[in-house]
Amino acid sequence: MVVELISVGTEILLGDIVNTNAAYLSKQCAALGLNMYAQSVVGDNDERLKELFEEAFKRSDVVILTGGLGPTEDDLTKETVCRAMGVELVRDEKAENNMINILTRLGYTPSKNNFKQAMVPKNGIILYNNNGTAPGMIIEKDGHAAVLLPGPPGEMIPMFEEYLIPYFSYHNPEVLYSMTIKECGIGESLLETRLLDLIDSQTNPTIATYAKTGCSEVRITAKAPTMDDAVMLVKPVADEVLKRLEGYVYSTDEKDNLEDVLVRLLKDKNLKIATAESCTGGLIGTKIVNVSGASNVYAYGYITYSDDAKCETLGVSRESIEKYTAVSDVVAMEMANGARVISGADIAVSVTGYAGPYDLKDEPKGLVYIGCSTAKETKAYEFRFSGNRQKIRENAAVRALDTVRRTIEEAY
Amino acid sequence: MVVELISVGTEILLGDIVNTNAAYLSKQCAALGLNMYAQSVVGDNDERLKELFEEAFKRSDVVILTGGLGPTEDDLTKETVCRAMGVELVRDEKAENNMINILTRLGYTPSKNNFKQAMVPKNGIILYNNNGTAPGMIIEKDGHAAVLLPGPPGEMIPMFEEYLIPYFSYHNPEVLYSMTIKECGIGESLLETRLLDLIDSQTNPTIATYAKTGCSEVRITAKAPTMDDAVMLVKPVADEVLKRLEGYVYSTDEKDNLEDVLVRLLKDKNLKIATAESCTGGLIGTKIVNVSGASNVYAYGYITYSDDAKCETLGVSRESIEKYTAVSDVVAMEMANGARVISGADIAVSVTGYAGPYDLKDEPKGLVYIGCSTAKETKAYEFRFSGNRQKIRENAAVRALDTVRRTIEEAY
Repeated sequence: MVVELISVGTEILLGDIVNTNAAYLSKQCAALGLNMYAQSVVGDNDERLKELFEEAFKRSDVVILTGGLGPTEDDLTKETVCRAMGVELVRDEKAENNMINILTRLGYTPSKNNFKQAMVPKNGIILYNNNGTAPGMIIEKDGHAAVLLPGPPGEMIPMFEEYLIPYFSYHNPEVLYSMTIKECGIGESLLETRLLDLIDSQTNPTIATYAKTGCSEVRITAKAPTMDDAVMLVKPVADEVLKRLEGYVYSTDEKDNLEDVLVRLLKDKNLKIATAESCTGGLIGTKIVNVSGASNVYAYGYITYSDDAKCETLGVSRESIEKYTAVSDVVAMEMANGARVISGADIAVSVTGYAGPYDLKDEPKGLVYIGCSTAKETKAYEFRFSGNRQKIRENAAVRALDTVRRTIEEAY
Repeated sequence: MVVELISVGTEILLGDIVNTNAAYLSKQCAALGLNMYAQSVVGDNDERLKELFEEAFKRSDVVILTGGLGPTEDDLTKETVCRAMGVELVRDEKAENNMINILTRLGYTPSKNNFKQAMVPKNGIILYNNNGTAPGMIIEKDGHAAVLLPGPPGEMIPMFEEYLIPYFSYHNPEVLYSMTIKECGIGESLLETRLLDLIDSQTNPTIATYAKTGCSEVRITAKAPTMDDAVMLVKPVADEVLKRLEGYVYSTDEKDNLEDVLVRLLKDKNLKIATAESCTGGLIGTKIVNVSGASNVYAYGYITYSDDAKCETLGVSRESIEKYTAVSDVVAMEMANGARVISGADIAVSVTGYAGPYDLKDEPKGLVYIGCSTAKETKAYEFRFSGNRQKIRENAAVRALDTVRRTIEEAY
């Protein structure tokens, strides 16, 4: 079943809002096994919307439109679509009562325009709105359907979940199953090289790779008449991908990111972590505390953005800085070791590097040392990242988390 | 000048990424006075992209395409567009050297596919990429132009700013002048209320408000035949807006964010800052070091995510925590004071709060205390933020920076 998306709203074309509705609906449709080949955005303009809708309705089984169901003059999605489809608008008492109730509760008197919102297409399926005054609607014709949803995500999302998931599941019996394999450290090109023959030869399941900062994800997706069949199609391909990425994979759970995995690992092994950050300036700490429950494993972090701070706070020796500079494996190790000892944590990670914006005399920006210290040993690793300040720092923080994860996997 | 946008990438259609590039480009084009009536998204599919591009190229003066310039098999934007336009691809030595340099620095050997990235349209304008291996390009034909940009925002945005802003300014002779007024702390609703009559009554200049986390921006934009005329139109309206937002405005420079203003202020006054963070976990430090030159004003930061860490690292008294809990004005003040004294900084800021995900027994999540300490005095401020963990923390960090800014403005 081919689905197409039209987002209506001049505010999207002006960049005043980010089209998160499109991302939400894309994800939902993919999960429901619907094929979406195109999306478009159009302003609050009757003629352009009509033209776009008519083309889309011809080529796709279902056209989902969001936005333009509000009470104001420039809300015209319903009127335009019904005109294009030759469908009459009629009063709907339930939608009207819902609108009156909501506005009364908020202390407003319904205006003439609000009554416009309660008009619905004759013989359409009405999606009553528990979170706003505009009902959604499904209008079917000649084996195609137009789905109209309100623009505010707080109204659109509950409506999609209540009405559209059952509607599509009924009309599109094919099932989709995806598995996501997440890796850190292999690099985008090498990842491609290792998987290219698989990607090229597979059609069901499909294999897609997604580059994130410092990490990548591989998604394997199969379509089948039943969930069991789809899972069976994914399994052997996933096993092959896992084998080829051995040593790099940190999770096969879609919802996990690296810090989730690390916090869980620390909790499981009953370990506490400390951080010592120079060029990342607190970014590793920020990532760790983003994980709910981080307080069980993380309490002490040190941001040491000058030589003095490194020496005074972490006990880095001035000799090491003079001899090797602050951006060196030796200083990274002393930072990590100092943070671990001072905090009493079981493991500590440090980052020191040149994030830019400028290259130094002897060193281009992007050189970063990550130190990792346990009671058993302290090590440092050299990295060279590219990109701007933020990207270098983001890369450094991600690889620091991964360095800790690898160290724990090996040592505990 | 009519501009149209095509985002290329199956990952957008699958909802794996939110199309923030479209929002960025929409905003930029609006600011440049370009008219955008349509946007679309298409997957990595040669036929569909070709069809969509040909239609767009016919009806719009400029078609901007993002994505699909990578090294992999399914990156085909350049090949498809050049085929549609009848333009030959040729080797570009500078793009090739740039690609080789970047990959070599990262420790990778360029693959055959990477060399594909360095092929460019004959007679096209090449937009060399400082942040990645794929050059962008402008291909002109019959008074229309196709602009191809890489998909990663970290590559696309600098490229747009370096090449496309001058390109469009040259080709679109109507001049647009914008002034952005940035405020922190007034709140979105009150901002609207204070400016509503101005917003409703103005057409040239227009006034638009943009809510950011903890802050807002007001953009006043005029269109005129000359820059002087446009500036003259903006000036009286800007003065009125500044008057109505007195006490909240931290900058009228589009490029500034709060941390830029703060670092500059600290530098001007020759002051050093220290940070002590609990629920923000390093986010304030991260923001400060994002500013180039932060090392002149920032060296010491402490992440203290447990009671023990607060007492041991910052000298917070256990009695205060027992009596008032760790989330209290007293503890916020002791954290800030401790950080200042231990680091030897002139001013220190602290944050302690409940970021969630759950409400506590006696306190809903979102309660945050921000402490600020100078040699003269130490104060704490209470805030109640709404939203999820990330949003509460982001709000807290922004308001902490603003608290320091206000304290310096008053005290020094």
